[in-house]
Amino acid sequence: MPPDAHPLTLADIARLAGVGLATASRALNGAPGVAPATRAKVLAVAEENAFVVSPDASRLAGGAQRRVAIVVPHISRWFFGTIVEAMLTVFQNADLDVLLYHVGSEAERHDFFEKLPARRKVDAVVVVAFPVDEQERQRIELLGVQIVAAGGQHAVYPHVCIDDVNAGRTAVNHLIGLGHRRIAMIEAVDPEQPVQPRGRSMAFYDTMAEADIPVEQDLVVSTPWGPEQGAEAMATLLSLPNPPTAVYAHSDEVAFGALRTIRRSGLFVPEDISIVSIDDHPMAALTDLTTVHQPVREQGIAAARNVLTLLNGDRPDQATTLPTQLIVRHSTAPPRAATAKTGPARR
Amino acid sequence: MPPDAHPLTLADIARLAGVGLATASRALNGAPGVAPATRAKVLAVAEENAFVVSPDASRLAGGAQRRVAIVVPHISRWFFGTIVEAMLTVFQNADLDVLLYHVGSEAERHDFFEKLPARRKVDAVVVVAFPVDEQERQRIELLGVQIVAAGGQHAVYPHVCIDDVNAGRTAVNHLIGLGHRRIAMIEAVDPEQPVQPRGRSMAFYDTMAEADIPVEQDLVVSTPWGPEQGAEAMATLLSLPNPPTAVYAHSDEVAFGALRTIRRSGLFVPEDISIVSIDDHPMAALTDLTTVHQPVREQGIAAARNVLTLLNGDRPDQATTLPTQLIVRHSTAPPRAATAKTGPARR
Repeated sequence: MPPDAHPLTLADIARLAGVGLATASRALNGAPGVAPATRAKVLAVAEENAFVVSPDASRLAGGAQRRVAIVVPHISRWFFGTIVEAMLTVFQNADLDVLLYHVGSEAERHDFFEKLPARRKVDAVVVVAFPVDEQERQRIELLGVQIVAAGGQHAVYPHVCIDDVNAGRTAVNHLIGLGHRRIAMIEAVDPEQPVQPRGRSMAFYDTMAEADIPVEQDLVVSTPWGPEQGAEAMATLLSLPNPPTAVYAHSDEVAFGALRTIRRSGLFVPEDISIVSIDDHPMAALTDLTTVHQPVREQGIAAARNVLTLLNGDRPDQATTLPTQLIVRHSTAPPRAATAKTGPARR
Repeated sequence: MPPDAHPLTLADIARLAGVGLATASRALNGAPGVAPATRAKVLAVAEENAFVVSPDASRLAGGAQRRVAIVVPHISRWFFGTIVEAMLTVFQNADLDVLLYHVGSEAERHDFFEKLPARRKVDAVVVVAFPVDEQERQRIELLGVQIVAAGGQHAVYPHVCIDDVNAGRTAVNHLIGLGHRRIAMIEAVDPEQPVQPRGRSMAFYDTMAEADIPVEQDLVVSTPWGPEQGAEAMATLLSLPNPPTAVYAHSDEVAFGALRTIRRSGLFVPEDISIVSIDDHPMAALTDLTTVHQPVREQGIAAARNVLTLLNGDRPDQATTLPTQLIVRHSTAPPRAATAKTGPARR
């Protein structure tokens, strides 16, 4: 559509309706968070002036671009690859094309949100397991582009996730139930993300407090997600004068590294140290790791369906929380102290 | 551009120049495989008739769509996720958008090549580790879209890969050098792909023949790629009256499954059975697996650079073969027979 088909800009409509730019955009796009009276006023002004928001406005019914952006901080890692693959299947079946953006660093992420307006070429953006800050969110919303989150909790737009607190509680309670008290946590963090999801850590502190087990700060190690990092974190824990009898790791990949460190130290799992984590990565079954299964493929499918619902002009559920389940394998057992009345010993 | 701006079709130009459709397209697109005289004739006919090939013609200088398609048979698997992530980094730095297509099955693959012409929206297609048949190749070429391959050998367009035969020979020779003679192969195949790359299998037969070791057909098991499949294949090998003392697996993921089966059988690696594979997956270091490292990220980067070269109107190297390297860890050792003069025994 040539520019002269738009005599008025969104800013003009906002001014005429006496509202801010974001409010005008939300009202025109049918987004939530606008009072009915305000919405009516904006729509009336727009109608009087035969205003078409932008080429994006036409996207709202049915997704005129037939294109969706998936934005991920990683692709090579199992969780992200699996969720992207599942979404692709749904989008391809709906004849939508997928633009993939990798925002591994703060700079790439900034770049993505800077360039998005100039591109104006997608109907929706799916952010996979990373938070979108308020400024970025407004930027996308002004374009009339829908946002959906997969694999993470976000209050302001439809999201599909697991309950991290619940998953973490299940893992820690499993260790407590086996009789462990010296329980360590390997807490995974993403150094590139300004906001860290805290559910898996909160679960640890809450569950330990409920069981009246004091948390020693030495037994909590923070590390970036990944097996090598998990291996190093475990080495730190084993170097303590009084090492833990059990470890709760935030993810299976972190746990895989920890398992190697334990094995290389000449200790045995679960006889000397138990370990439990969250994910149920395909390698968890192969390494006999006890873990809390999360349905990853299903999170991708549900998030993609949310996008299709939005592009059909309907509203999906704001929050979809998929269930997790403890899978007990052979990496957890009662501590030696509880079975043989002696402390854990190195061999 | 409206249809009436194209009084002639590509077929008309081909007819007027007295050449086939594919030749006309190649000549106009500056693709190789056209005799200079033929090319000159086609160009002259096109010029006389003020012919514009298609909106695609304008893409050739600099990539007018600024968009590349990456086509992958898998995403959640490490090799594919890693190669896609690497390519994305290069393309995003060059300000190109990436459309991602997952062609996991024969049907999806057919669908992709069927719909591509209607889409006409990419400057280049990168196929990751799957073969493109002649009909599909012609289809893409007629559109004036460039093809590049990553992680696989393809005679007809620029490709980046490792030397599978060489990698396999290195692995098998490592086992032979340690004194093994009863060497099994777990051969990985993709049931969804019509053409199977054979290099890793050929390497086994060639190397065994050179060492004058007869191959027993019982010791070769074919299985789809993946850990669970590797676990089953290993069970088949262990059920033989006279099991192998060493196993060559086509990939680390297959080997991970095999390792679990060996461990569950009460056997020890490498004391009872040695295992070597190809990849150097991140979990290989964690499971102490001896393997032939292949540079995956580097294959993605090189393939993406080939695309940039093509979009700049230059020709990249037709074949880029990246080096592989044996990484000896603790899954391989001389067979018991060679050290203690007794056969392998179960414990």
